[in-house]
Amino acid sequence: MTTAPIITLLTDFGLSDVYVGIMKGVILTRCPAATIIDLTHDLPQGNIPQAGYLLAAAWRYYPAGTVHCAVVDPGVGTDRRIIAAEVDDQFFIAPDNGLLSNVFDEGEVKRVVSVENETLMLEPISQTFHGRDIFAPCAASIAAGLRLEALGPATDEWIHLPRIEPGLGPHGRRTGQVIHIDRFGNIITNLRAADVPRRPRLHIARHSIRGLQSSYAAVPHGELLAIIGSTGRIEISIHHGDAAAMLGVSVGDEVTIEREAD
Amino acid sequence: MTTAPIITLLTDFGLSDVYVGIMKGVILTRCPAATIIDLTHDLPQGNIPQAGYLLAAAWRYYPAGTVHCAVVDPGVGTDRRIIAAEVDDQFFIAPDNGLLSNVFDEGEVKRVVSVENETLMLEPISQTFHGRDIFAPCAASIAAGLRLEALGPATDEWIHLPRIEPGLGPHGRRTGQVIHIDRFGNIITNLRAADVPRRPRLHIARHSIRGLQSSYAAVPHGELLAIIGSTGRIEISIHHGDAAAMLGVSVGDEVTIEREAD
Amino acid sequence: MTTAPIITLLTDFGLSDVYVGIMKGVILTRCPAATIIDLTHDLPQGNIPQAGYLLAAAWRYYPAGTVHCAVVDPGVGTDRRIIAAEVDDQFFIAPDNGLLSNVFDEGEVKRVVSVENETLMLEPISQTFHGRDIFAPCAASIAAGLRLEALGPATDEWIHLPRIEPGLGPHGRRTGQVIHIDRFGNIITNLRAADVPRRPRLHIARHSIRGLQSSYAAVPHGELLAIIGSTGRIEISIHHGDAAAMLGVSVGDEVTIEREAD
Repeated sequence: MTTAPIITLLTDFGLSDVYVGIMKGVILTRCPAATIIDLTHDLPQGNIPQAGYLLAAAWRYYPAGTVHCAVVDPGVGTDRRIIAAEVDDQFFIAPDNGLLSNVFDEGEVKRVVSVENETLMLEPISQTFHGRDIFAPCAASIAAGLRLEALGPATDEWIHLPRIEPGLGPHGRRTGQVIHIDRFGNIITNLRAADVPRRPRLHIARHSIRGLQSSYAAVPHGELLAIIGSTGRIEISIHHGDAAAMLGVSVGDEVTIEREAD
Repeated sequence: MTTAPIITLLTDFGLSDVYVGIMKGVILTRCPAATIIDLTHDLPQGNIPQAGYLLAAAWRYYPAGTVHCAVVDPGVGTDRRIIAAEVDDQFFIAPDNGLLSNVFDEGEVKRVVSVENETLMLEPISQTFHGRDIFAPCAASIAAGLRLEALGPATDEWIHLPRIEPGLGPHGRRTGQVIHIDRFGNIITNLRAADVPRRPRLHIARHSIRGLQSSYAAVPHGELLAIIGSTGRIEISIHHGDAAAMLGVSVGDEVTIEREAD
Repeated sequence: MTTAPIITLLTDFGLSDVYVGIMKGVILTRCPAATIIDLTHDLPQGNIPQAGYLLAAAWRYYPAGTVHCAVVDPGVGTDRRIIAAEVDDQFFIAPDNGLLSNVFDEGEVKRVVSVENETLMLEPISQTFHGRDIFAPCAASIAAGLRLEALGPATDEWIHLPRIEPGLGPHGRRTGQVIHIDRFGNIITNLRAADVPRRPRLHIARHSIRGLQSSYAAVPHGELLAIIGSTGRIEISIHHGDAAAMLGVSVGDEVTIEREAD
């Protein structure tokens, strides 16, 4: 490999402790050439669907050979498995708790193994910090060129969270839901551009929004708008404001889109 | 270039989403050798003057050839331009919204171009995330050695926010303002060491401070002090305390300095 | 050296300012090949014992030759010294305020110098930001291969914070204390696995916990548990909850462990 191997980290460990810093030390000890990138460490604790959403939003922008190490792991210390996977031309290691579901939905799953080779792990393995003892050293080994097969036996069973697709109602009405709220308070839905009828009208939290805009600034300050966001999904925002806070909306809330009568 | 090209990022995207992580993937895809440094991602949203202040505080400490990519961009999706610039021996890319004003004031502006070459951008270009689709790939291209001229036509017009200089009053009294409040609650003003008379007395928020100290610890815990800060400006602090919170001071508030009667 | 030198940073500067970004620019200017890793910048301000605890938790996971630069420095601008040290096969630079006490307790202290060589520092040296003017350039010089002796004279005196060990009472009862609370609200104590009797019972904040668990998930959601944490110390946690908040516990609070009657 002529360029440095890349390892991304996505955890709910936060940045006020040194848990992430410890993982990076373990990685650099085993794979000194690694470029380590933080996707985020500020996930809501133990929130596997949000972790999966954010990982799926990011991974395709990374070069071939990147190793994505995702540790949102409420089952640490139990007998839950850890899996490593090759999807398209990239690598993943994560608890077998559904975190990789979105990635598996989107890419070609070439290989999945159950991570069991203890000779690759730190010793002793703690009961509470597998990020340090298992995930970091195994991710580093993959980045350093180890084949997935060396991590453990191939498996074709894993926990898969069902993708929640919008429902289709009468008159082309579609019912979706809120799948993420970002730092700005933008409300990301699972409705996609293809779900948008002519003369669209959105309904969310007793508010109604007409049409789609092409920029936040297309409406006055403080006004609600709908827009096709950066993942191709419909997002609801407030120009210079926090739409989620203003509407009191949470992940999982319903949003519908329909065609306005002519 | 014998050393790795450096790209710094300064945004208001926060670190709880993966927006920054996505930009880094785009950068590493195009310029695998890049060293990517976060200046900050925790700017107050859409606050262009604060972004400009912080970028100006940092850039001179970077080596020649560094590319600074600054995305505080409330006009994303509108027809606001994006500019790239060579100032002294470093490079910048930012929305044309005044963010680079302080840098332009401080360095020798050698070249400014309007970023328009779509062959360098991701496709399709989203309406909401030009950090990913335009800023990151163009910054990576510059870091990889592309000449600025390849990004778009030269321009000699851009939005420039006026530098706010202290006013001079009778008896050598100078009236400045608060330009930044840092994490510790230190109040950074636009008054400089050269503005300090003999026997100085500062006035801010109905408080009065005599003299300048040479360290925070020069006064007892909990006491106000004035000191020449790390950018050469007068700062008002509390030893082991939060001056901005205690005084109720915000960016833009007035601060005056005068010479005490002998 | 065939691999890139590593410099870790541990400060209380936060990430909303560019103080850390400025230090990185200074480091890369002097040592362009450096890999810079953030241990944390979100320490409670001026809290030297917490800084020392976290640095001690992390440093052993880094490869030989790593330079750890720790700046929690309430005495900046006073005549407090700055020291640099070689401990085992790694390097440290920190204020001489006790921050390195835990590291010195754990490793073999091979050499300590008082950092005084101004030719290695930025000029002029500010009164408030030695992270930029002294720590960063000196850390970079060490990473670039400079011998510690070049930084200043050897010293064998420095401020050392006493290690707080659990006390031993009648019937094998041990009295320890809370030494850290992490982001999850896990309560880390200074009691170690070796302090655990048969049939252990813990007492903290008027709560009593029987036995040690092998994973958080070994008890129902919302229930208290004790577990040997990742540093080998007894930790008190709530499965899917914040133990420190629920118990109202702070660093320094007492925790005891005793053997239950048969």
